[in-house]
Amino acid sequence: MHPLMLPAEPMHRWATDLFPIHRSLTGAGVRQTLAYLQDLLPGLRVESVASGTRAFDWTVPDEWTVRAASITHESGERVADIADHTLHLMGYSVPVDATLPLEALQEHLHSLPEQPDAIPYVTSYYERRWGFCMAHRKRAQLKPGLYRVRIDTDLSPGVMNYGEFILPGSDTSEIFLSTYVCHPSMANNELSGPVVTAALARWLARLPTRRYTYRIIFVPETIGSLVYLSRHLEAMRRNMIAGFVVTCAGDERAYSLMPSRRGDTLADRAARAALRGFAEPYTEYSFLERGSDERQYCSPSADLPVASIMRSKYGTFPEYHTSLDDLSFVTQQGLEGALRVYQRCLWTLEHNETYRATCVGEPQLVRHGFMPGASHKGTAIEPRRLLNILAYADGTRDLIAIAETTRIDVVECVNLAQLLLKRGLLEITWSGMKGGSGSATVPC
Amino acid sequence: MHPLMLPAEPMHRWATDLFPIHRSLTGAGVRQTLAYLQDLLPGLRVESVASGTRAFDWTVPDEWTVRAASITHESGERVADIADHTLHLMGYSVPVDATLPLEALQEHLHSLPEQPDAIPYVTSYYERRWGFCMAHRKRAQLKPGLYRVRIDTDLSPGVMNYGEFILPGSDTSEIFLSTYVCHPSMANNELSGPVVTAALARWLARLPTRRYTYRIIFVPETIGSLVYLSRHLEAMRRNMIAGFVVTCAGDERAYSLMPSRRGDTLADRAARAALRGFAEPYTEYSFLERGSDERQYCSPSADLPVASIMRSKYGTFPEYHTSLDDLSFVTQQGLEGALRVYQRCLWTLEHNETYRATCVGEPQLVRHGFMPGASHKGTAIEPRRLLNILAYADGTRDLIAIAETTRIDVVECVNLAQLLLKRGLLEITWSGMKGGSGSATVPC
Amino acid sequence: MHPLMLPAEPMHRWATDLFPIHRSLTGAGVRQTLAYLQDLLPGLRVESVASGTRAFDWTVPDEWTVRAASITHESGERVADIADHTLHLMGYSVPVDATLPLEALQEHLHSLPEQPDAIPYVTSYYERRWGFCMAHRKRAQLKPGLYRVRIDTDLSPGVMNYGEFILPGSDTSEIFLSTYVCHPSMANNELSGPVVTAALARWLARLPTRRYTYRIIFVPETIGSLVYLSRHLEAMRRNMIAGFVVTCAGDERAYSLMPSRRGDTLADRAARAALRGFAEPYTEYSFLERGSDERQYCSPSADLPVASIMRSKYGTFPEYHTSLDDLSFVTQQGLEGALRVYQRCLWTLEHNETYRATCVGEPQLVRHGFMPGASHKGTAIEPRRLLNILAYADGTRDLIAIAETTRIDVVECVNLAQLLLKRGLLEITWSGMKGGSGSATVPC
Repeated sequence: MHPLMLPAEPMHRWATDLFPIHRSLTGAGVRQTLAYLQDLLPGLRVESVASGTRAFDWTVPDEWTVRAASITHESGERVADIADHTLHLMGYSVPVDATLPLEALQEHLHSLPEQPDAIPYVTSYYERRWGFCMAHRKRAQLKPGLYRVRIDTDLSPGVMNYGEFILPGSDTSEIFLSTYVCHPSMANNELSGPVVTAALARWLARLPTRRYTYRIIFVPETIGSLVYLSRHLEAMRRNMIAGFVVTCAGDERAYSLMPSRRGDTLADRAARAALRGFAEPYTEYSFLERGSDERQYCSPSADLPVASIMRSKYGTFPEYHTSLDDLSFVTQQGLEGALRVYQRCLWTLEHNETYRATCVGEPQLVRHGFMPGASHKGTAIEPRRLLNILAYADGTRDLIAIAETTRIDVVECVNLAQLLLKRGLLEITWSGMKGGSGSATVPC
Repeated sequence: MHPLMLPAEPMHRWATDLFPIHRSLTGAGVRQTLAYLQDLLPGLRVESVASGTRAFDWTVPDEWTVRAASITHESGERVADIADHTLHLMGYSVPVDATLPLEALQEHLHSLPEQPDAIPYVTSYYERRWGFCMAHRKRAQLKPGLYRVRIDTDLSPGVMNYGEFILPGSDTSEIFLSTYVCHPSMANNELSGPVVTAALARWLARLPTRRYTYRIIFVPETIGSLVYLSRHLEAMRRNMIAGFVVTCAGDERAYSLMPSRRGDTLADRAARAALRGFAEPYTEYSFLERGSDERQYCSPSADLPVASIMRSKYGTFPEYHTSLDDLSFVTQQGLEGALRVYQRCLWTLEHNETYRATCVGEPQLVRHGFMPGASHKGTAIEPRRLLNILAYADGTRDLIAIAETTRIDVVECVNLAQLLLKRGLLEITWSGMKGGSGSATVPC
Repeated sequence: MHPLMLPAEPMHRWATDLFPIHRSLTGAGVRQTLAYLQDLLPGLRVESVASGTRAFDWTVPDEWTVRAASITHESGERVADIADHTLHLMGYSVPVDATLPLEALQEHLHSLPEQPDAIPYVTSYYERRWGFCMAHRKRAQLKPGLYRVRIDTDLSPGVMNYGEFILPGSDTSEIFLSTYVCHPSMANNELSGPVVTAALARWLARLPTRRYTYRIIFVPETIGSLVYLSRHLEAMRRNMIAGFVVTCAGDERAYSLMPSRRGDTLADRAARAALRGFAEPYTEYSFLERGSDERQYCSPSADLPVASIMRSKYGTFPEYHTSLDDLSFVTQQGLEGALRVYQRCLWTLEHNETYRATCVGEPQLVRHGFMPGASHKGTAIEPRRLLNILAYADGTRDLIAIAETTRIDVVECVNLAQLLLKRGLLEITWSGMKGGSGSATVPC
């Protein structure tokens, strides 16, 4: 079976398993999540980085442990409890055991008047505070009186964890996938990333041949990617031909592309080719609207070719960063759509050769078994496509450029080019492209 | 008289003379056509290439001789006869003398249900078959019974012919014109090509001076151009600054441009300049919609700068490849329109110098006899045009680029530049441009 | 106070003072005007160039002295007198003392039927004639009979004057400002130029530091700029990074830009950045529509990077070159608008460094005192702007390019970049840009 035809794995079930875990930048929730992913990806290495470790301008924070957190009215009514929803507790809340009147409690509550049924997602990583989040409708009904607040957390030196999975290819040049594992119960802006990445990694592992080496990481957002960069920047700059931040890959509303900072790298070009004709119309955002780890990877001093293929981009859907970003918003079908585009994209990169037509003029396709002997009004599609590929196979265009110019679907273009290669009508002039500015005409 | 004002020759009459001749890739029809053209162009050389000769991926086919072909019903009624229309016989039909029932005959008939009065044009060059074409209305009325099919043709080793006409210029750099002579009685998609090309060649031959050498060929489409390329590719690549496939140059409906594969060669730039302001609006097609011998000339390994200025492009008009493409669809006025654009185009190429203004600042045009002494609201057109030409004559732009930037008609721009040159306000900085990518700013 | 916040000077009063002076290419009116400007700009040097001096293709004309000019009907009615309006006399009119019938007088009269209340502005610099201009309504009422015409002028060898003001900076690289002083009583298409230029020069003189040297000239249009070029071209080409022709800078209707001939020089880029977000929508004209001294400065052999920021461009407003271009059409507010854009433009040039972000990844802005510790739905504007500047500070983009890419107002971008520089998050990679083609990515 063609690798792009393989049935998709149960990503929505994986997301369902991972949903209740209380993830944050650090702590047991991340480790639990990585352990689950290790079951899916034997060979995934879990790394630990000590609190206080520097990564460029940043420092790994203390480890946050969360055991329980609730607010109880003097009447005994429990008005918020993380046993009900992990989002009730503001991320990185310090431990508290106190009784407060409603007025004083209000200063620690977060809610969204315009989305009265949504619990917002709030964190305070770098300022020591505590807080609770709740639906605004519920907050409005809080009775006067005293409230007992109990936050049984721990914020002290420990470790930050992340996962790294390396799939070797026949070439040391690398393709990079990065996704994050630091948000508690949210589906599109969190779990869609690791589950699509895991499915991609499993699919890559099963390919009969693999040209590139894949560097796949599961990190806490921002601090995790910075720590990873601080440890591997030299190798990543030397080897990476294209990279992707996998996030917001699970709903069914839209497809979108966050290009790299340069906007024309091989990652951008492959992503556009994969989206074109398959996931249209898709929205291409400006890099000014970035918001995930491409902020680190594409920063001028790192300057890596990292883009992001998404379904509904973070910040653009009303469920974003609330309890509404749940497993009804994210579906198996939505996840499969993102997976398919990423598969098309990586498949394109694996087969992105620069070709040259071998003969002067058009070949007599009929001699090569391609075409009916009689010409007639109109021409069959197939030969015209073959001739268009040959017309632009001039030794300066890679397959992505040929697909774009000829307006042939990039996966179909791979198939047809392989057919022409087999017949001796095409030859590969240059291979093993490296990343950077992504110009197909200036190989290096 | 200005060469661009010379009255046009009777191209429609030439086409009328050539219309009944039974042309195909090979055979007496091509020779008859070339003989007629020799009368118009003394010096035209007729070449012969033996059947079986290889040209890159192709082979010159056997020569096809056609003497007679008809279908007669057992009642004696003749339902198709090439004496009535050459299109009745499928091109390259093998000889047949047989009697068949209508049902068996049907498998050899071609017609167009959606154009019931048109005889379609069908060939089978590379598969040995036979067939007849007829109006669908007529076919629908065929009576049951037996039909006597007689095809008196001959398909055996012989030659393929083509014509070559070289007009030397003061420079060995060449401009190339190619047209085809292999379709039987069709007017726009055949005869407009050779008659406009012949008129152009006669016009060029009469120019008082001619800077470039003209290589003008009349070839069977595809195999003819491939054979010609196989014999002359090196010289063509060395000398050609621009080339054009002259075809579909005779109706009055539209103007269009098929650009070269590269799209920005000197041929493309001159063609656009010639069309602009004279034949607008015109349609610029994508090279993906190509269909004539630019397929060979522009193939990556030949990579010649060949474009095609047309009236209604092949494949876009309903009469295409049917008996409706006749001498009422093609008119003298239609032919003259195409001729004029080609004359403008070649005239532009002949005068496409790169200029530099000689003085700092604008000249005092009044001192050079150009401008009224008093300034007033608004400025006369003429001086403003002269000043605009001088403003962009910076030693990097050729005349085509200056015409485009200043939005002055390219022929008017030639006239004005020559005036400025005569007054010493312009000088030529670089001349003798060569073909290729056509960038005016990188002479070589 | 921030230099861009300083209150504007009384430019409209200066224009009112200068309005009645009878300026032309040469003569006492120009000297009077320059003397007034010397009061505003101590250090302004007034230069004299003898009639007959050559400047490229041009020659300095004889000096024109105008004392009185009038037309009186035999009834004693004075129908035109330059004591009433300087525009009544055609510029460069020869002396006359004659009596003519109305019919003969008509040949010397100029009026605008379509603007019956406007006195047109007409000159005859290079053909010796005389003439009067008047409102068409008045002309239509002229009674038959004899008219006494008295023109007390003098046209004989003398000098042409211009003013030059040099403000040294810490760098010998120069910014150039040119404005003209050769039209009599007109406000937008004359006096707005010198008064905005004088205000700019005074503002520049007061800046605490000044990186560039400013070469500021007040010249008769065309012949004045050509004479200046003929004397200083080598230094201007060596030192000029950007220049501007200041004209039509006083009405309130519009903003517009006349780009340099190349269109992408540093002058063009700084002008666009200054206009953007502050004076939008503004019209960018084609260089084909040029009309002032950029015709000389940008001519191919001078090739200086000179643009023009205007309010309503010459030739586009109905008052142009008539008595309606007066001090009610030009306002203090209109003049201040132009002044502000020029200040923004020069401020931008003074601070147009090429930056590089110092750290890999985004900095932790909170550590540098920039950002609240809690993330929430939406992000504060300020940090996002800082991060966007850092994202594009890659050592290849100057500040103008960063402002354009990040869509941050260029002056705000200067402020933010200086803040980041102070915190050590940015460094200057390259400074002291020179003019020319203006590509920010190819410093020289």
